[in-house]
Amino acid sequence: MTHPTTAEAAFPVTPRNKVKRMHERGSYDRAVIYPILDAGFLCHVSYVIDGQPFATPTIHWREGDTLYWHGSSASRMLRHLKDGASACLTVSHLDGLVLARCGFNHSANYRSAMCFGTARIVDEPAAKAAALSALVDRFFPGRDATLRPMSAQEIKATTVIAMPIDEASAKVRAKGVGDDAEDMDLPIWAGVIPVRTVIGAIETSPHVPAGVATPDSLGVYAQGATLDSALLATQRLYEGE
Amino acid sequence: MTHPTTAEAAFPVTPRNKVKRMHERGSYDRAVIYPILDAGFLCHVSYVIDGQPFATPTIHWREGDTLYWHGSSASRMLRHLKDGASACLTVSHLDGLVLARCGFNHSANYRSAMCFGTARIVDEPAAKAAALSALVDRFFPGRDATLRPMSAQEIKATTVIAMPIDEASAKVRAKGVGDDAEDMDLPIWAGVIPVRTVIGAIETSPHVPAGVATPDSLGVYAQGATLDSALLATQRLYEGE
Repeated sequence: MTHPTTAEAAFPVTPRNKVKRMHERGSYDRAVIYPILDAGFLCHVSYVIDGQPFATPTIHWREGDTLYWHGSSASRMLRHLKDGASACLTVSHLDGLVLARCGFNHSANYRSAMCFGTARIVDEPAAKAAALSALVDRFFPGRDATLRPMSAQEIKATTVIAMPIDEASAKVRAKGVGDDAEDMDLPIWAGVIPVRTVIGAIETSPHVPAGVATPDSLGVYAQGATLDSALLATQRLYEGE
Repeated sequence: MTHPTTAEAAFPVTPRNKVKRMHERGSYDRAVIYPILDAGFLCHVSYVIDGQPFATPTIHWREGDTLYWHGSSASRMLRHLKDGASACLTVSHLDGLVLARCGFNHSANYRSAMCFGTARIVDEPAAKAAALSALVDRFFPGRDATLRPMSAQEIKATTVIAMPIDEASAKVRAKGVGDDAEDMDLPIWAGVIPVRTVIGAIETSPHVPAGVATPDSLGVYAQGATLDSALLATQRLYEGE
Protein backbone atom coordinates (compact mmCIF):
# COMPACT_ATOMS: atom_id res chain seq x y z
CA MET A 1 0.00 0.00 0.00
CA THR A 2 1.43 3.36 -0.98
CA HIS A 3 0.45 6.75 0.31
CA PRO A 4 0.87 10.28 -1.00
CA THR A 5 4.19 11.86 -0.27
CA THR A 6 4.20 15.21 1.43
CA ALA A 7 4.65 18.24 -0.75
CA GLU A 8 6.42 20.48 1.69
CA ALA A 9 9.40 19.65 3.84
CA ALA A 10 8.32 21.77 6.79
CA PHE A 11 5.16 22.90 8.55
CA PRO A 12 4.47 26.62 8.85
CA VAL A 13 5.50 28.23 12.13
CA THR A 14 2.67 29.94 13.99
CA PRO A 15 2.12 31.09 17.56
CA ARG A 16 0.52 27.71 18.23
CA ASN A 17 3.37 25.42 17.25
CA LYS A 18 6.36 27.77 17.69
CA VAL A 19 8.99 26.22 19.98
CA LYS A 20 9.49 29.04 22.43
CA ARG A 21 11.92 27.54 24.92
CA MET A 22 15.22 25.92 24.02
CA HIS A 23 14.39 26.73 20.40
CA GLU A 24 17.69 25.19 19.29
CA ARG A 25 16.04 21.87 20.15
CA GLY A 26 13.03 22.60 17.93
CA SER A 27 12.16 21.61 14.38
CA TYR A 28 9.22 22.02 12.02
CA ASP A 29 10.48 19.54 9.44
CA ARG A 30 8.45 16.50 8.50
CA ALA A 31 11.72 14.58 8.26
CA VAL A 32 12.24 15.14 12.00
CA ILE A 33 8.63 15.07 13.20
CA TYR A 34 7.32 11.99 11.39
CA PRO A 35 9.91 9.49 12.63
CA ILE A 36 9.13 10.62 16.20
CA LEU A 37 5.42 10.00 15.62
CA ASP A 38 6.02 6.69 13.82
CA ALA A 39 8.42 5.34 16.48
CA GLY A 40 5.73 5.58 19.18
CA PHE A 41 2.86 3.19 19.87
CA LEU A 42 1.18 5.38 22.49
CA CYS A 43 0.37 9.04 22.07
CA HIS A 44 -1.48 11.51 24.27
CA VAL A 45 -4.42 13.34 22.73
CA SER A 46 -5.48 16.58 24.37
CA TYR A 47 -8.97 17.95 23.97
CA VAL A 48 -11.30 20.27 25.90
CA ILE A 49 -14.76 19.56 27.29
CA ASP A 50 -16.54 22.48 28.93
CA GLY A 51 -13.24 24.20 29.57
CA GLN A 52 -11.67 21.14 31.20
CA PRO A 53 -8.59 19.80 29.44
CA PHE A 54 -7.97 16.05 29.17
CA ALA A 55 -4.77 14.26 28.19
CA THR A 56 -5.81 10.80 27.06
CA PRO A 57 -3.37 8.05 26.11
CA THR A 58 -4.26 6.11 22.99
CA ILE A 59 -2.76 4.28 20.01
CA HIS A 60 -2.17 6.41 16.92
CA TRP A 61 -1.07 5.78 13.36
CA ARG A 62 -0.11 8.06 10.47
CA GLU A 63 -0.83 8.08 6.76
CA GLY A 64 0.89 10.93 4.98
CA ASP A 65 -0.07 14.14 6.75
CA THR A 66 -3.02 12.61 8.61
CA LEU A 67 -3.01 11.11 12.09
CA TYR A 68 -5.55 8.46 13.07
CA TRP A 69 -6.70 7.03 16.36
CA HIS A 70 -9.67 4.99 17.44
CA GLY A 71 -11.72 3.91 20.38
CA SER A 72 -15.09 2.84 21.57
CA SER A 73 -18.03 4.63 19.98
CA ALA A 74 -19.20 5.32 23.54
CA SER A 75 -16.00 6.95 24.78
CA ARG A 76 -16.14 10.45 26.20
CA MET A 77 -13.22 11.63 24.11
CA LEU A 78 -14.56 10.33 20.82
CA ARG A 79 -18.11 11.53 21.33
CA HIS A 80 -16.65 14.95 21.94
CA LEU A 81 -14.75 14.94 18.66
CA LYS A 82 -17.74 13.91 16.59
CA ASP A 83 -18.45 17.38 15.28
CA GLY A 84 -14.80 18.23 14.73
CA ALA A 85 -12.75 19.73 17.51
CA SER A 86 -9.36 21.29 18.04
CA ALA A 87 -6.98 18.67 19.27
CA CYS A 88 -3.31 18.25 20.04
CA LEU A 89 -1.63 14.88 19.62
CA THR A 90 1.78 14.44 21.23
CA VAL A 91 4.22 11.54 21.05
CA SER A 92 7.18 11.55 23.44
CA HIS A 93 10.16 9.25 23.88
CA LEU A 94 12.44 9.30 26.92
CA ASP A 95 16.04 8.48 25.93
CA GLY A 96 18.02 9.31 29.05
CA LEU A 97 18.32 11.05 32.41
CA VAL A 98 21.01 13.74 32.43
CA LEU A 99 22.81 14.51 35.71
CA ALA A 100 24.84 17.72 35.85
CA ARG A 101 26.96 19.54 38.47
CA CYS A 102 24.05 21.77 39.53
CA GLY A 103 20.32 21.21 39.72
CA PHE A 104 19.60 23.73 36.98
CA ASN A 105 21.55 21.79 34.34
CA HIS A 106 19.94 18.43 35.11
CA SER A 107 17.90 17.43 32.10
CA ALA A 108 16.55 14.57 30.04
CA ASN A 109 17.30 13.29 26.58
CA TYR A 110 14.04 12.96 24.71
CA ARG A 111 12.25 13.22 21.39
CA SER A 112 8.77 14.68 21.26
CA ALA A 113 6.42 15.74 18.49
CA MET A 114 3.33 17.86 19.02
CA CYS A 115 0.68 18.04 16.27
CA PHE A 116 -2.29 20.37 15.98
CA GLY A 117 -5.41 20.07 13.88
CA THR A 118 -9.13 19.48 13.80
CA ALA A 119 -10.12 15.92 14.61
CA ARG A 120 -13.11 14.38 12.85
CA ILE A 121 -14.82 11.00 12.86
CA VAL A 122 -14.26 8.78 9.82
CA ASP A 123 -17.85 7.82 9.03
CA GLU A 124 -17.83 6.83 5.38
CA PRO A 125 -17.99 2.98 5.38
CA ALA A 126 -15.17 2.29 2.89
CA ALA A 127 -12.86 4.83 4.55
CA LYS A 128 -13.66 3.42 7.99
CA ALA A 129 -13.01 -0.16 6.82
CA ALA A 130 -9.71 0.90 5.26
CA ALA A 131 -8.70 2.67 8.46
CA LEU A 132 -9.50 -0.37 10.62
CA SER A 133 -7.41 -2.56 8.33
CA ALA A 134 -4.62 -0.01 8.50
CA LEU A 135 -4.73 -0.04 12.30
CA VAL A 136 -3.73 -3.72 12.21
CA ASP A 137 -1.47 -3.74 9.15
CA ARG A 138 0.46 -0.62 10.04
CA PHE A 139 1.81 -2.37 13.16
CA PHE A 140 1.68 -6.00 11.98
CA PRO A 141 2.42 -6.11 8.24
CA GLY A 142 -0.05 -8.20 6.26
CA ARG A 143 -1.89 -9.41 9.36
CA ASP A 144 -5.35 -8.00 8.67
CA ALA A 145 -6.03 -10.37 5.75
CA THR A 146 -5.23 -13.37 7.99
CA LEU A 147 -7.78 -12.47 10.69
CA ARG A 148 -11.40 -13.36 11.31
CA PRO A 149 -13.10 -10.34 9.67
CA MET A 150 -14.64 -7.77 12.00
CA SER A 151 -18.40 -8.14 12.41
CA ALA A 152 -20.82 -5.34 11.61
CA GLN A 153 -21.40 -4.95 15.34
CA GLU A 154 -17.66 -4.66 16.05
CA ILE A 155 -17.27 -2.05 13.32
CA LYS A 156 -20.24 -0.12 14.70
CA ALA A 157 -18.79 -0.23 18.21
CA THR A 158 -15.52 1.27 17.00
CA THR A 159 -15.01 4.92 16.17
CA VAL A 160 -12.13 6.04 13.99
CA ILE A 161 -10.82 9.58 14.23
CA ALA A 162 -8.74 11.37 11.60
CA MET A 163 -6.80 14.58 12.13
CA PRO A 164 -5.01 16.21 9.19
CA ILE A 165 -1.94 17.84 10.70
CA ASP A 166 -2.25 21.60 10.26
CA GLU A 167 0.80 22.50 12.32
CA ALA A 168 3.42 20.51 14.13
CA SER A 169 6.74 20.82 15.86
CA ALA A 170 9.35 18.50 17.27
CA LYS A 171 11.69 19.01 20.18
CA VAL A 172 14.75 16.83 20.64
CA ARG A 173 17.57 16.71 23.16
CA ALA A 174 20.16 14.08 22.29
CA LYS A 175 23.52 14.90 23.85
CA GLY A 176 25.69 14.70 26.93
CA VAL A 177 25.71 16.82 30.07
CA GLY A 178 25.32 20.58 29.54
CA ASP A 179 27.38 21.82 32.45
CA ASP A 180 28.45 25.46 32.65
CA ALA A 181 32.10 26.06 31.73
CA GLU A 182 32.87 27.22 35.28
CA ASP A 183 31.44 24.00 36.73
CA MET A 184 33.62 21.64 34.67
CA ASP A 185 36.35 21.12 37.27
CA LEU A 186 34.04 20.57 40.24
CA PRO A 187 34.62 17.18 41.91
CA ILE A 188 30.98 16.16 41.36
CA TRP A 189 29.95 13.19 39.28
CA ALA A 190 27.94 13.98 36.12
CA GLY A 191 26.71 11.79 33.31
CA VAL A 192 23.84 10.28 31.42
CA ILE A 193 21.66 7.30 32.37
CA PRO A 194 20.42 6.00 29.00
CA VAL A 195 16.93 4.56 28.76
CA ARG A 196 15.32 2.58 25.97
CA THR A 197 12.11 0.70 25.36
CA VAL A 198 12.79 -2.90 24.32
CA ILE A 199 10.79 -5.89 23.23
CA GLY A 200 10.60 -9.03 25.36
CA ALA A 201 10.05 -12.67 24.42
CA ILE A 202 6.81 -13.08 22.46
CA GLU A 203 4.17 -15.01 24.42
CA THR A 204 1.89 -17.17 22.30
CA SER A 205 -1.67 -17.37 23.58
CA PRO A 206 -2.35 -20.77 25.22
CA HIS A 207 -5.47 -21.06 23.06
CA VAL A 208 -3.62 -21.07 19.74
CA PRO A 209 -4.01 -24.53 18.16
CA ALA A 210 -0.91 -26.70 17.87
CA GLY A 211 0.90 -26.21 14.59
CA VAL A 212 0.03 -22.53 14.19
CA ALA A 213 3.41 -20.78 14.09
CA THR A 214 4.32 -17.24 15.00
CA PRO A 215 4.04 -15.29 11.71
CA ASP A 216 7.35 -14.43 10.02
CA SER A 217 6.11 -10.86 9.69
CA LEU A 218 6.56 -10.44 13.45
CA GLY A 219 10.31 -10.88 13.01
CA VAL A 220 10.83 -7.14 13.46
CA TYR A 221 9.56 -7.57 17.02
CA ALA A 222 12.57 -9.67 17.97
CA GLN A 223 13.41 -10.00 21.65
CA GLY A 224 15.85 -7.26 22.65
CA ALA A 225 15.06 -5.02 19.66
CA THR A 226 13.94 -1.52 20.50
CA LEU A 227 10.27 -0.74 20.06
CA ASP A 228 11.37 2.36 18.11
CA SER A 229 13.16 0.34 15.48
CA ALA A 230 10.31 -2.17 15.14
CA LEU A 231 7.70 0.56 14.72
CA LEU A 232 9.81 2.49 12.21
CA ALA A 233 10.39 -0.71 10.22
CA THR A 234 6.69 -1.61 10.15
CA GLN A 235 5.76 1.94 9.14
CA ARG A 236 8.18 1.71 6.20
CA LEU A 237 6.64 -1.62 5.18
CA TYR A 238 3.18 -0.14 5.50
CA GLU A 239 4.14 2.79 3.30
CA GLY A 240 5.43 0.33 0.71
CA GLU A 241 8.90 1.79 0.69
CA MET B 1 12.38 13.40 54.37
CA THR B 2 8.89 12.21 55.25
CA HIS B 3 5.62 13.40 53.86
CA PRO B 4 2.05 13.30 55.04
CA THR B 5 0.25 10.07 54.35
CA THR B 6 -3.02 10.23 52.54
CA ALA B 7 -6.16 10.07 54.63
CA GLU B 8 -8.45 8.40 52.15
CA ALA B 9 -7.79 5.28 50.15
CA ALA B 10 -9.71 6.40 47.08
CA PHE B 11 -10.54 9.56 45.17
CA PRO B 12 -14.19 10.51 44.71
CA VAL B 13 -15.75 9.46 41.42
CA THR B 14 -17.20 12.35 39.40
CA PRO B 15 -18.21 12.85 35.77
CA ARG B 16 -14.66 14.17 35.19
CA ASN B 17 -12.64 11.19 36.33
CA LYS B 18 -15.17 8.38 35.90
CA VAL B 19 -13.74 5.57 33.76
CA LYS B 20 -16.52 5.19 31.21
CA ARG B 21 -15.10 2.56 28.88
CA MET B 22 -13.77 -0.81 29.96
CA HIS B 23 -14.63 0.20 33.51
CA GLU B 24 -13.37 -3.16 34.78
CA ARG B 25 -9.93 -1.77 33.97
CA GLY B 26 -10.50 1.36 36.07
CA SER B 27 -9.57 2.29 39.63
CA TYR B 28 -9.84 5.31 41.88
CA ASP B 29 -7.55 3.97 44.58
CA ARG B 30 -4.40 5.82 45.56
CA ALA B 31 -2.73 2.42 45.99
CA VAL B 32 -3.21 1.80 42.25
CA ILE B 33 -2.83 5.36 40.93
CA TYR B 34 0.29 6.52 42.80
CA PRO B 35 2.63 3.70 41.75
CA ILE B 36 1.67 4.43 38.12
CA LEU B 37 2.55 8.11 38.60
CA ASP B 38 5.74 7.32 40.52
CA ALA B 39 6.98 4.75 38.01
CA GLY B 40 7.07 7.34 35.21
CA PHE B 41 9.66 10.01 34.52
CA LEU B 42 7.68 11.75 31.77
CA CYS B 43 4.08 12.83 32.03
CA HIS B 44 1.84 14.78 29.68
CA VAL B 45 0.18 17.90 31.05
CA SER B 46 -2.91 19.14 29.26
CA TYR B 47 -4.06 22.72 29.49
CA VAL B 48 -6.12 25.13 27.40
CA ILE B 49 -5.11 28.49 25.95
CA ASP B 50 -7.84 30.40 24.12
CA GLY B 51 -9.79 27.21 23.55
CA GLN B 52 -6.80 25.37 22.08
CA PRO B 53 -5.72 22.27 23.98
CA PHE B 54 -2.06 21.40 24.40
CA ALA B 55 -0.53 18.10 25.55
CA THR B 56 2.96 18.95 26.77
CA PRO B 57 5.49 16.34 27.90
CA THR B 58 7.40 17.20 31.04
CA ILE B 59 8.99 15.68 34.15
CA HIS B 60 6.72 15.36 37.18
CA TRP B 61 7.15 14.34 40.77
CA ARG B 62 4.72 13.65 43.62
CA GLU B 63 4.62 14.50 47.31
CA GLY B 64 1.59 13.06 49.04
CA ASP B 65 -1.47 14.19 47.12
CA THR B 66 0.33 16.95 45.22
CA LEU B 67 1.95 16.70 41.80
CA TYR B 68 4.79 19.01 40.83
CA TRP B 69 6.42 19.92 37.56
CA HIS B 70 8.72 22.71 36.46
CA GLY B 71 10.03 24.58 33.50
CA SER B 72 11.39 27.80 32.23
CA SER B 73 9.76 30.91 33.64
CA ALA B 74 9.30 32.02 30.03
CA SER B 75 7.47 28.90 28.82
CA ARG B 76 4.04 29.22 27.27
CA MET B 77 2.59 26.48 29.41
CA LEU B 78 3.85 27.83 32.72
CA ARG B 79 2.94 31.45 32.03
CA HIS B 80 -0.56 30.22 31.35
CA LEU B 81 -0.80 28.45 34.70
CA LYS B 82 0.39 31.44 36.70
CA ASP B 83 -3.06 32.43 37.86
CA GLY B 84 -4.20 28.89 38.53
CA ALA B 85 -5.74 26.85 35.75
CA SER B 86 -7.53 23.56 35.28
CA ALA B 87 -5.05 20.96 34.23
CA CYS B 88 -4.89 17.24 33.59
CA LEU B 89 -1.66 15.34 34.18
CA THR B 90 -1.43 11.85 32.72
CA VAL B 91 1.29 9.21 33.07
CA SER B 92 1.13 6.17 30.78
CA HIS B 93 3.22 3.03 30.52
CA LEU B 94 3.10 0.64 27.57
CA ASP B 95 3.62 -2.96 28.71
CA GLY B 96 2.75 -4.98 25.63
CA LEU B 97 1.12 -5.29 22.23
CA VAL B 98 -1.77 -7.77 22.19
CA LEU B 99 -2.56 -9.61 18.96
CA ALA B 100 -5.91 -11.42 18.76
CA ARG B 101 -7.78 -13.49 16.15
CA CYS B 102 -9.76 -10.47 14.93
CA GLY B 103 -8.93 -6.81 14.63
CA PHE B 104 -11.48 -5.81 17.24
CA ASN B 105 -9.78 -7.79 20.01
CA HIS B 106 -6.30 -6.45 19.31
CA SER B 107 -5.24 -4.39 22.28
CA ALA B 108 -2.36 -3.19 24.40
CA ASN B 109 -1.23 -3.89 27.92
CA TYR B 110 -0.74 -0.60 29.69
CA ARG B 111 -0.98 1.32 32.94
CA SER B 112 -2.18 4.91 32.91
CA ALA B 113 -3.15 7.41 35.57
CA MET B 114 -5.02 10.64 34.86
CA CYS B 115 -5.09 13.38 37.51
CA PHE B 116 -7.21 16.52 37.62
CA GLY B 117 -6.75 19.69 39.60
CA THR B 118 -5.90 23.36 39.59
CA ALA B 119 -2.25 24.05 38.89
CA ARG B 120 -0.55 26.99 40.59
CA ILE B 121 2.94 28.44 40.64
CA VAL B 122 5.02 27.82 43.76
CA ASP B 123 6.20 31.36 44.48
CA GLU B 124 7.08 31.41 48.16
CA PRO B 125 10.92 31.29 48.29
CA ALA B 126 11.33 28.51 50.88
CA ALA B 127 8.70 26.33 49.22
CA LYS B 128 10.27 26.90 45.81
CA ALA B 129 13.75 26.05 47.12
CA ALA B 130 12.40 22.89 48.76
CA ALA B 131 10.66 21.89 45.53
CA LEU B 132 13.82 22.40 43.45
CA SER B 133 15.77 20.23 45.89
CA ALA B 134 13.03 17.64 45.73
CA LEU B 135 13.19 17.62 41.93
CA VAL B 136 16.80 16.35 42.18
CA ASP B 137 16.53 14.20 45.32
CA ARG B 138 13.30 12.48 44.37
CA PHE B 139 15.07 10.90 41.37
CA PHE B 140 18.65 10.79 42.69
CA PRO B 141 18.57 10.19 46.44
CA GLY B 142 20.78 12.58 48.42
CA ARG B 143 22.23 14.20 45.31
CA ASP B 144 21.05 17.77 45.82
CA ALA B 145 23.36 18.39 48.79
CA THR B 146 26.37 17.31 46.70
CA LEU B 147 25.75 19.80 43.88
CA ARG B 148 26.93 23.32 43.18
CA PRO B 149 24.00 25.31 44.64
CA MET B 150 21.62 26.94 42.18
CA SER B 151 22.28 30.65 41.65
CA ALA B 152 19.65 33.29 42.28
CA GLN B 153 19.42 33.76 38.52
CA GLU B 154 18.89 30.04 37.92
CA ILE B 155 16.15 29.93 40.57
CA LYS B 156 14.51 32.98 39.02
CA ALA B 157 14.62 31.40 35.57
CA THR B 158 12.83 28.29 36.83
CA THR B 159 9.13 28.09 37.53
CA VAL B 160 7.73 25.36 39.78
CA ILE B 161 4.10 24.30 39.46
CA ALA B 162 2.09 22.45 42.09
CA MET B 163 -1.23 20.74 41.52
CA PRO B 164 -3.09 19.17 44.45
CA ILE B 165 -4.90 16.17 42.99
CA ASP B 166 -8.65 16.76 43.27
CA GLU B 167 -9.69 13.72 41.28
CA ALA B 168 -7.82 10.90 39.64
CA SER B 169 -8.33 7.54 38.00
CA ALA B 170 -6.17 4.74 36.77
CA LYS B 171 -6.74 2.34 33.92
CA VAL B 172 -4.78 -0.88 33.65
CA ARG B 173 -4.78 -3.78 31.22
CA ALA B 174 -2.39 -6.53 32.27
CA LYS B 175 -3.39 -9.88 30.81
CA GLY B 176 -3.25 -12.15 27.80
CA VAL B 177 -5.26 -12.14 24.61
CA GLY B 178 -8.99 -11.46 24.98
CA ASP B 179 -10.30 -13.54 22.09
CA ASP B 180 -13.99 -14.33 21.80
CA ALA B 181 -14.90 -17.90 22.82
CA GLU B 182 -15.99 -18.71 19.27
CA ASP B 183 -12.61 -17.57 17.88
CA MET B 184 -10.49 -19.81 20.08
CA ASP B 185 -10.09 -22.69 17.61
CA LEU B 186 -9.28 -20.54 14.58
CA PRO B 187 -5.88 -21.41 13.06
CA ILE B 188 -4.62 -17.86 13.51
CA TRP B 189 -1.65 -16.95 15.69
CA ALA B 190 -2.40 -14.79 18.73
CA GLY B 191 -0.22 -13.62 21.56
CA VAL B 192 1.43 -10.79 23.43
CA ILE B 193 4.60 -8.89 22.50
CA PRO B 194 5.87 -7.60 25.88
CA VAL B 195 7.56 -4.22 26.06
CA ARG B 196 9.57 -2.67 28.86
CA THR B 197 11.67 0.40 29.42
CA VAL B 198 15.16 -0.48 30.61
CA ILE B 199 18.25 1.34 31.75
CA GLY B 200 21.46 1.22 29.72
CA ALA B 201 25.09 1.54 30.77
CA ILE B 202 25.67 4.80 32.64
CA GLU B 203 27.86 7.22 30.66
CA THR B 204 30.12 9.40 32.80
CA SER B 205 30.62 12.91 31.40
CA PRO B 206 34.11 13.26 29.86
CA HIS B 207 34.57 16.44 31.92
CA VAL B 208 34.32 14.71 35.30
CA PRO B 209 37.77 14.90 37.00
CA ALA B 210 39.68 11.67 37.46
CA GLY B 211 38.95 10.02 40.79
CA VAL B 212 35.31 11.16 41.01
CA ALA B 213 33.31 7.93 41.17
CA THR B 214 29.73 7.25 40.17
CA PRO B 215 27.71 7.78 43.36
CA ASP B 216 26.58 4.62 45.14
CA SER B 217 23.10 6.12 45.30
CA LEU B 218 22.77 5.56 41.54
CA GLY B 219 22.90 1.81 42.13
CA VAL B 220 19.16 1.54 41.56
CA TYR B 221 19.80 2.65 37.97
CA ALA B 222 21.71 -0.54 37.20
CA GLN B 223 22.09 -1.53 33.57
CA GLY B 224 19.21 -3.80 32.54
CA ALA B 225 16.95 -2.74 35.42
CA THR B 226 13.56 -1.41 34.42
CA LEU B 227 13.05 2.33 34.71
CA ASP B 228 9.80 1.54 36.58
CA SER B 229 11.59 -0.31 39.34
CA ALA B 230 14.30 2.37 39.69
CA LEU B 231 11.75 5.17 39.91
CA LEU B 232 9.58 3.30 42.42
CA ALA B 233 12.66 2.57 44.56
CA THR B 234 13.84 6.20 44.53
CA GLN B 235 10.34 7.41 45.37
CA ARG B 236 10.29 5.09 48.40
CA LEU B 237 13.69 6.43 49.48
CA TYR B 238 12.47 9.98 49.00
CA GLU B 239 9.41 9.31 51.12
CA GLY B 240 11.69 7.95 53.82
CA GLU B 241 10.02 4.58 53.90
